[in-house]
Amino acid sequence: MRSVCVIGLGLIGGSLLRAASTSGRTAWGAAPGDDASGALADGFSASSDLDEALRRAASEDALVVLAMPLPEVDGVLARVAELAPECRLSDVVSVKEPVARSVRRAVPGARYVGGHPMAGTSSSGWAAGSASLFDGAAWVTTVDERTELEVWRDVASLALDAGAHVVPVSTAEHDDAVARISHLPHVFAAVLAAVGADGGPLAMALAAGSFGDGTRVAGSNPELVRAMCEGNGTRLLSVVDDALGRLGAARGSLASTGSLAATLKAGHHGRQSLDAARAEPRNGVRVDLRAPDASDGLAAIGARGGRITALDGDIALGELP
Amino acid sequence: MRSVCVIGLGLIGGSLLRAASTSGRTAWGAAPGDDASGALADGFSASSDLDEALRRAASEDALVVLAMPLPEVDGVLARVAELAPECRLSDVVSVKEPVARSVRRAVPGARYVGGHPMAGTSSSGWAAGSASLFDGAAWVTTVDERTELEVWRDVASLALDAGAHVVPVSTAEHDDAVARISHLPHVFAAVLAAVGADGGPLAMALAAGSFGDGTRVAGSNPELVRAMCEGNGTRLLSVVDDALGRLGAARGSLASTGSLAATLKAGHHGRQSLDAARAEPRNGVRVDLRAPDASDGLAAIGARGGRITALDGDIALGELP
Repeated sequence: MRSVCVIGLGLIGGSLLRAASTSGRTAWGAAPGDDASGALADGFSASSDLDEALRRAASEDALVVLAMPLPEVDGVLARVAELAPECRLSDVVSVKEPVARSVRRAVPGARYVGGHPMAGTSSSGWAAGSASLFDGAAWVTTVDERTELEVWRDVASLALDAGAHVVPVSTAEHDDAVARISHLPHVFAAVLAAVGADGGPLAMALAAGSFGDGTRVAGSNPELVRAMCEGNGTRLLSVVDDALGRLGAARGSLASTGSLAATLKAGHHGRQSLDAARAEPRNGVRVDLRAPDASDGLAAIGARGGRITALDGDIALGELP
Repeated sequence: MRSVCVIGLGLIGGSLLRAASTSGRTAWGAAPGDDASGALADGFSASSDLDEALRRAASEDALVVLAMPLPEVDGVLARVAELAPECRLSDVVSVKEPVARSVRRAVPGARYVGGHPMAGTSSSGWAAGSASLFDGAAWVTTVDERTELEVWRDVASLALDAGAHVVPVSTAEHDDAVARISHLPHVFAAVLAAVGADGGPLAMALAAGSFGDGTRVAGSNPELVRAMCEGNGTRLLSVVDDALGRLGAARGSLASTGSLAATLKAGHHGRQSLDAARAEPRNGVRVDLRAPDASDGLAAIGARGGRITALDGDIALGELP
């Protein structure tokens, strides 16, 4: 099992250091301040010395995983370029194209495969993490033309060890999908929370399930949410326009005929798609990573809603809906 | 304890029949088809004979509670007008002005106090109900100029027996508040679910907490949601416009400067208002129901985010933030 060097020990990086260590890997982390001291106090290998962590990664050919908000990625990549310029590199940042672009520019020799575990809570920091955070979660791994499947396998293996299943997708498809199912929900939660609170203390006293659920993620650290959403700004803008179109249509129908039938029917149908995706029986699939079209085969599995659930040597085993 | 006649035995009416019976009241219900037979099979007093249930209510001076979707209220009120024209009357419909208007028109002699328990699940029908559905929930009771406080006390007492706390408010304030914290969340969930599902199987496979929470209520029966939202159409329209304005502002800011700071900050602040309302320590308050300004006193408690938690003879005891 390949060693792992986690840079950034907040909720996601801290959970990854725990999960990697628990699975028996050699794993160490670096982070500024409280996160590193928290990890150390809990018995993990951690320090605030980024350079030392990267030097060790270079000498042990470890997989380096970047686990900081997008605005901090470029600063860390500058150190990677100097100390581990040809390392195996991944990340857990929630948007993939901006990270891939930064890596190409700053560390062109890095063997990079993007990652994004679809897990989290509304808390942040080392103390909020847990080795089981990724249990049952989808862990996106990017597969593009230039992807080295040997490194893809390193990343997939780490994700599987952490309890996740692996969803291989192209960078562009990932960023479009998360604009819809992660970034727009954060924008909607914020708008809903603000309109609700405008109703004053009575509205807050009456708020129950639908408002509580619909605004839950507005409780997250707004600076982290901002970094995530703004990092995917171009794609998010197009999805916000879709949402404005649908909300405007609901408004028009309510004003003219008093009906919300079309809006509510489409929403119910959409929610049923989610339930169906979660419940669907799955058919086995396998990809030989040595085959010339292996990258395309992996990306097609993700695009169809499938997943990789195990690795057996050079064979990736998975499921399709 | 006053006897209770529940008309409609779906999720809410069925839970109320259970809760009223469990608290030791004489309680019976009427509903069409499966809901009545389900209630009977579970050992409750229920039938499909609406007229008989209303005749008994008139002869025993029971509190009649209407528990059907808004579009069915007028049909039932026509029977109430004939068989129990001066009854004590309440309801659990999620919008209050349309019900109050129908009652004034169809049963002008009824002693009506509107009600709305803020509880539910995404399921419906007798089988989905439970005697504990209202535990810890807010139960709105309308207090307006013409409200008879003797009947208000009947309704409040029933709500308290069912495990809820009572929020007295004016009809208009209720309908504005629920447009914000219940009906808009349903519209938002529908729009979000539709935009997400447009992302295809990959988007559904990656959907996790934020999308799942934000679309949960889109899983509810869309016909019931439609009746609820459309019944409050005028107020909902104005709240949808607020939301369109905020979402449009987010869109403009994202397009021009790339920033979502203002949107996310306002949303975080709104969500903190909800958390504060739930956590706030409360100060005792009491209202003498015989006092000439008792109605105003009750409505002021609701408007300030307060609640009634007990009745002691003619004294209503409660809490204010």
